[in-house]
Formats: sequence, C-alpha cells, structure tokens
Amino acid sequence: MKRIHNKEDIIQVGLDLVLSRGFNATGVEAILKQANVPKGSFYNFFSSKEEFGLAIIDKFVAGRAEVLSPIFSDESIPPLERVKKSFDTMIAIFGSDDCSKGCLIGNLGQEMADQFENVRQRLNQALQSWTKELSKLLLQAQKENTIPADTNVDMLAENLISSFQGALLLSKIKKSPEPLRNFIHLYFDIFLAQRTEN
Amino acid sequence: MKRIHNKEDIIQVGLDLVLSRGFNATGVEAILKQANVPKGSFYNFFSSKEEFGLAIIDKFVAGRAEVLSPIFSDESIPPLERVKKSFDTMIAIFGSDDCSKGCLIGNLGQEMADQFENVRQRLNQALQSWTKELSKLLLQAQKENTIPADTNVDMLAENLISSFQGALLLSKIKKSPEPLRNFIHLYFDIFLAQRTEN
Repeated sequence: MKRIHNKEDIIQVGLDLVLSRGFNATGVEAILKQANVPKGSFYNFFSSKEEFGLAIIDKFVAGRAEVLSPIFSDESIPPLERVKKSFDTMIAIFGSDDCSKGCLIGNLGQEMADQFENVRQRLNQALQSWTKELSKLLLQAQKENTIPADTNVDMLAENLISSFQGALLLSKIKKSPEPLRNFIHLYFDIFLAQRTEN
Repeated sequence: MKRIHNKEDIIQVGLDLVLSRGFNATGVEAILKQANVPKGSFYNFFSSKEEFGLAIIDKFVAGRAEVLSPIFSDESIPPLERVKKSFDTMIAIFGSDDCSKGCLIGNLGQEMADQFENVRQRLNQALQSWTKELSKLLLQAQKENTIPADTNVDMLAENLISSFQGALLLSKIKKSPEPLRNFIHLYFDIFLAQRTEN
C-alpha cells in the first residue's frame, strides 16, 4: 500500500511541477523532494522519465474528464451551449492560475512531440477523444439546426480545440486572459452564431 | 571580425537546435560543438543563456520578416488575400519540416513565458508587431468591404495568429498538416468569407 500511495503522490506533485516549469526543466529530484518521497525511489515506480510523462498525461486527462463530463452530458443546456460552457470552465481554471500553467496536452505537445514518440501518441489519443466528445455535441447542434447542415462537425470540433490551445498560448505570452475571451467571443458570438442566421 | 562571425554562427545553429529540441533541452555545449566554436566561448558572447534566447528570437523575427514583408506589401493582391498568403507561406515552410519545429514564438512562449520575464516580453513584442501588420491589412479589407464594418480588426488579427499557433501545435501532435489546412479553410472559406455575404 505504501508504494502505491507514494506513486500517486509522485504523479500529482509531478503534474503540478511540469505544468509550472515544463517537462525538461522539472528534475526527478525536485519531484521527489516535493512529494516527500525518498531519493532514488523514482525508478521503483517508473522505468524512465518518459513513462512518468505518460502517467501524468493520464492523470491530467482523468482530472479534466471529471470536470467536463457533467457539462457534456447536461441535457438541460443546448448542445452548442455545452461546448461553450466547457471552454468557459477551462478558461476560469486557467485564469485563476494567473494565465500560467495552461493545458498539459498543449504544453507537452509543444515540448515533447518531436522527441518522445510514445508521449506524442498518448497526447494524440487524448486530443482524439476530446475531439469526439465535442463532435457528438456539434452533431446534435446540427440536427437541431443550430449550426448549418453543411458543417463538417469533426473538422470544426478539432479546430475549436486547436484555436483554444492557441489562445491559451497567447494568454500565457501576454499574461492576460484577453486572447481566451476573444476566442469565446469570436467563435460563439460571431463565427458560429452568424452561420445559424443563414 | 572573427568574434562577430562566431557569434552569428552560434545564433544560427542555436536557433535551429532550439526549434528542433526546445530551449531547456538544448545544451550550450551542443550548440558550440555544432557551430564549431571553441568550448567556453559562449559566455564571451552572451552574459547568460537567457540573453542567448533573446538573440535567437530577434534572429527568428528578422528571418520571418524577410519572407513575409514582400507578401504584406504586394499591392497586386487584395489585402485579405495577402493575410491568407502569409499563413499559406508559413505553413508550406512548416510542412517541409515534417510538421516538427514550428514557430519559435509559440515554442518559446509555451516553454519559457512563465520562467523568463525578459523572454516573455520579447515574445510579446514580436506578437504585437505581427498583430499590427495583419491589422493594417484587415483594416484595408474592411474599407474595401471585404470584411464587415463592425469587425474589430485588432481582435481578429490577434485571433488569427492565436488560432494559427494552435493549429501548428496540433499539427505537431498529429504529425499531419491537416489542422493547419483546416485552419485556412475554416477561416478564409467560411468564417470570414461568409461574413462578407451579409
């Protein structure tokens, strides 16, 4: 039981540190120190730092699902509104961190996709499931004529995630939530809203 | 003369390495080895690795301006088409690298904005000038009624850059130029094209 407890601690502490500092800049020693785990025990739990990277991705994805699943399945809200609310919710979390940290998927994608093929594949899987979730809601919105019949909902779902990731990045560089607020405004009040008027 | 030649070499080699590997993962020794510059001479040229970071940002921005300025100022093409062509041109360069590397501004923003305040500010300046260049063209397009009178051109200019950065990131994670192609299609054939029909 102790080992399992320790492993969970390392993953949680590691996730926070990697979100703040990046993967390469986060040393194994710093993680163990912060997690209060004896030096040298890291490799009892993970065969490599890459394996640790995969574990924190899984942790992050599970945490995000906990926050977003109730929104995605809330049938009291129209489907396109649920998509908007899911982004609003993530933006509120990001803003509370002074626009630092960001989304682990984007952060690690930028830093590691070219270096660690297993990490890239795990991130890609996470993006694919996220895209599918949005895509289902957009298809429902399409059936209800909230978005036009000729919209490719899979393409739009991925593009929403893509533009959200870009807005997170610009908010980090500007140290301001403005690019995120503008992403919400342009997509949901103009680009998509307008299309429904046709 | 020799010192200046060496410094330029270090910046060029460093830019390439940082684009492939990231900033933290690029060691000073690797740069000097590749640049064929004697060990230990790095700190003759740069007071810190952060100062070196600022130098490669300036190099990257100057290189991009060389490619984009002729497009931005080409009056034989309508202004909104020039905006599109500038992104198409960057995408062609990115695609030729097998969708790795990406845009230094986005890469360093993700990796360093929270760690190095001077780097963040320099990246922010680069984004501001880029936004201004696009904004000028969008204002011209607005005067020619290619985009609607109620569009906030500064907001749209920044959002285009933001969504482009996100598409670069997703292309990296997917190892496919598809998110970039979809960015061009959705913005220029649908979101902006449609608005002009109103």
